[in-house]
Amino acid sequence: MFPKIVRLNCFNDFKMLKRSLRNRPDFTKNRYKIPRGNYNYLHDDHIKYFRNLLGDERLIMDLSDLERYNVDWYKQVRGCSTVVLKPKTTDEISKILSFCNKENLAICTQGGNTGVVGGCVPVFDEIVISTELLNEIISFDENSGILTSQSGCILQNLDNFLAEKNFMVPLDLGAKGTCQIGGNVSTNAGGMRLLRYGNMHGNVLGLEAVLANGEIIDCLSTLKKDNTGYHLKHLFIGSEGTLGVITKVSIQCPTRPKFRNVALLGLQNYDKVLKTYRLVKHSLAEILSAIEVMDAGFMEFVKDKNNKKLPIDDYPFYLMLETTGSNESHDQEKLNKLFEEVIQKGLVLNGTVASDAKKVEEIWSIRDTISDGIKECKAVLLYDISLPLVHYYRIIEDIREYLGNKCLTVFGYGHIGDGNLHITIQLDNYDNQLKEDVENYVLERTLAYEGSVSAEHGLGFMKAHYLDKIKAKNTLNLMKNIKEMMDPKGILNPYKVIQKQH
Amino acid sequence: MFPKIVRLNCFNDFKMLKRSLRNRPDFTKNRYKIPRGNYNYLHDDHIKYFRNLLGDERLIMDLSDLERYNVDWYKQVRGCSTVVLKPKTTDEISKILSFCNKENLAICTQGGNTGVVGGCVPVFDEIVISTELLNEIISFDENSGILTSQSGCILQNLDNFLAEKNFMVPLDLGAKGTCQIGGNVSTNAGGMRLLRYGNMHGNVLGLEAVLANGEIIDCLSTLKKDNTGYHLKHLFIGSEGTLGVITKVSIQCPTRPKFRNVALLGLQNYDKVLKTYRLVKHSLAEILSAIEVMDAGFMEFVKDKNNKKLPIDDYPFYLMLETTGSNESHDQEKLNKLFEEVIQKGLVLNGTVASDAKKVEEIWSIRDTISDGIKECKAVLLYDISLPLVHYYRIIEDIREYLGNKCLTVFGYGHIGDGNLHITIQLDNYDNQLKEDVENYVLERTLAYEGSVSAEHGLGFMKAHYLDKIKAKNTLNLMKNIKEMMDPKGILNPYKVIQKQH
Repeated sequence: MFPKIVRLNCFNDFKMLKRSLRNRPDFTKNRYKIPRGNYNYLHDDHIKYFRNLLGDERLIMDLSDLERYNVDWYKQVRGCSTVVLKPKTTDEISKILSFCNKENLAICTQGGNTGVVGGCVPVFDEIVISTELLNEIISFDENSGILTSQSGCILQNLDNFLAEKNFMVPLDLGAKGTCQIGGNVSTNAGGMRLLRYGNMHGNVLGLEAVLANGEIIDCLSTLKKDNTGYHLKHLFIGSEGTLGVITKVSIQCPTRPKFRNVALLGLQNYDKVLKTYRLVKHSLAEILSAIEVMDAGFMEFVKDKNNKKLPIDDYPFYLMLETTGSNESHDQEKLNKLFEEVIQKGLVLNGTVASDAKKVEEIWSIRDTISDGIKECKAVLLYDISLPLVHYYRIIEDIREYLGNKCLTVFGYGHIGDGNLHITIQLDNYDNQLKEDVENYVLERTLAYEGSVSAEHGLGFMKAHYLDKIKAKNTLNLMKNIKEMMDPKGILNPYKVIQKQH
Repeated sequence: MFPKIVRLNCFNDFKMLKRSLRNRPDFTKNRYKIPRGNYNYLHDDHIKYFRNLLGDERLIMDLSDLERYNVDWYKQVRGCSTVVLKPKTTDEISKILSFCNKENLAICTQGGNTGVVGGCVPVFDEIVISTELLNEIISFDENSGILTSQSGCILQNLDNFLAEKNFMVPLDLGAKGTCQIGGNVSTNAGGMRLLRYGNMHGNVLGLEAVLANGEIIDCLSTLKKDNTGYHLKHLFIGSEGTLGVITKVSIQCPTRPKFRNVALLGLQNYDKVLKTYRLVKHSLAEILSAIEVMDAGFMEFVKDKNNKKLPIDDYPFYLMLETTGSNESHDQEKLNKLFEEVIQKGLVLNGTVASDAKKVEEIWSIRDTISDGIKECKAVLLYDISLPLVHYYRIIEDIREYLGNKCLTVFGYGHIGDGNLHITIQLDNYDNQLKEDVENYVLERTLAYEGSVSAEHGLGFMKAHYLDKIKAKNTLNLMKNIKEMMDPKGILNPYKVIQKQH
């Protein structure tokens, strides 16, 4: 069985982690200077309605209790909501939304509050609907591996439930112990093993959501094949709570693999990384479950900040690859054959492999503890992008050239199997103008290389301003028309993803 | 390498194949007696516009040439379109749609014309837009396995192209040699290996589509992770050409497996089928690529009609399972271990396995030739449904009980791994009232068992009347609102999926 690993592999762009993690951020409304939408302000009659519906204990109004719902987990943004509602059922959410829509009250749906683009905390005084009490597992079909639950179930809890039945959740995130399945679906979460198990659009078989006007949309199919009409569920996957509140989800879960191996390889340059990746894909094929790349800057950083000792010498590049399968010796034989080939072809300089849980964990921890090191930095800029693999590492070289000695280090690492790259830029001191320049430069380079400026994290509040720059007019208009049709008053998670003009 | 197999595994409900395949069907407008929408009729100025745009050779108006675009491949429905347009580019499609929208002319987009619910042929005189000349492969990234092409590329051609590079298309359909990728995407095609490679919503990374008003929607991402705004492409996946015309597609393609084994097992009852299926899923895990179930009625039928000899004796149930992997001896070892276990546990009575191409093909042909036999029947009713596995075979028993001696045989077979069941009912003579009664009974039973009345085939024209019966009011309204927003005049594939009131 797998060792438990808490992994923190997702960061937000443009933030100073040290500052943001230790101090409470300024109110977003002050920091970002955007106008409040013309929503109603909460008054006593509203509170009375909510109290009647939920009772005192599911209505949070105490200022100190409110804090954790108003601030995101990286402490980058801070809303000033004065009420958090904790419904337990779809019907309660339907009543809340119907009421808010009629009363023109803005709402912000919050799952585990582990998003990193400020998507799930209020910007102004939006009413927070916390899904934390929508935490029931509704059904699991051991024949098909299809799990149905309320949206507030914590991912790790679902996985623990499935582990007993030899199944697993089809996604693996650093925030597993806190994030909720509804949040995963609404942000179209990615993660480490997407290359093996596929994305949310493929794995979510059905969902139930409540529209802005309180109408319940029941697409809670638990079937792998169902071609009856428009596939509406996808409107809610990845739209970050701006089109509806997801209340129930059904997902297909793969069988839990019995064995795991992890290897760390040292390589000379990115060209060899790419060639090795291609070879790995074809020779490990069905047993490959993760493949991560890291450059020398990453390793230097991890060794320096986290006192990590590497099981192999220093190299310009590293690949960490994981296999999971149903037969230990088969998997090891495939790995050994691969190693022979890559060494013989001169693609890989050195490598080590682990199959026992402790060593597996030790190797993974090199990749996992990066966030701890970053937290210790004085000033750092972080990006999460995806790129075609041929350009994957060029952007790091571009940024190095662009910044010259204006920064301490630029390094890159990420899920190469998905073209997903995390960029870390370490600065001497935080500099607002430099941050803006780098942001523009990274955007320009990412678009030039036909990449995406948000691979896994969504747009939320902090990246919403990208939208006009990255989408064609017609595409943007279609998005706006959908938002207008489904939420004409714009009460659902305003100021996020697509910004309504007030 | 795999033997080439032409497989015909999808049928439509409620049809008499013998009659329909041999004779030209009546005009749909006469047979179904639905009113024509208030669209404009084609006149000379329209033709002049199309001729200017496309030239004579890409404008079909000759009656005998028109026939194959007006009749579906199972010869169930027949439109009376008088013009077929053959654009080559997105820009031409944009101009055609913009013009048709302005002139209130209805259109019907047609790919390979292999749909089986009458979705891709005109109902009345809709202008046919054939995508057959949109047949260019735009790019293939050998690093990521991402293929981008125009929508009119034939699936088999794409697979041949990929085979040379050791990749494969992620779906496998009987109509592979004729169907087009754009049609596959717009009907959300399923097929035999969905359980291994996932569905279209997971595999389509991007697409370009033209809206009713001629606007081009560019969602042609070639990235595995891209979380920037609403995931619009899913609106076009499975909406059967009623929301836009798909012009380009990018899909992720898995590496081509090197080895294949196929086994045929005999079992005593459905309970043991289900238990074996569960065991197979866990023990073959990463190498399982297809699992099909067939009952004794199916085998009797195939032996009788197709003169098939079985490699094993007669049993009440059969499982056919396929593995594909990167190491032949590993796969065979896993299979042998499985066989030992299922025999020892008394789950399976007998079995045979094949790994050389000829024998693999022989075993598959038992499953594949079913359609040839059906064509020989005097009268037959066919259904394609999906069900939770616990009820999967109960519906066959229900139908047998319901029909008693009113039919010759009822048998079932299908992709058990996806809960997808094909039902065949052989009648003495075709009987319209009986057909209607059975249709209602199957619908009622399918809904009672929480299944879907269209697993793989979509609603098209012939199943569109189900929609009101199977969707909740709110869900249906949302579908209608989307259609109204994206195609306010209802010119795109009218009378299909969602029927606009005229």
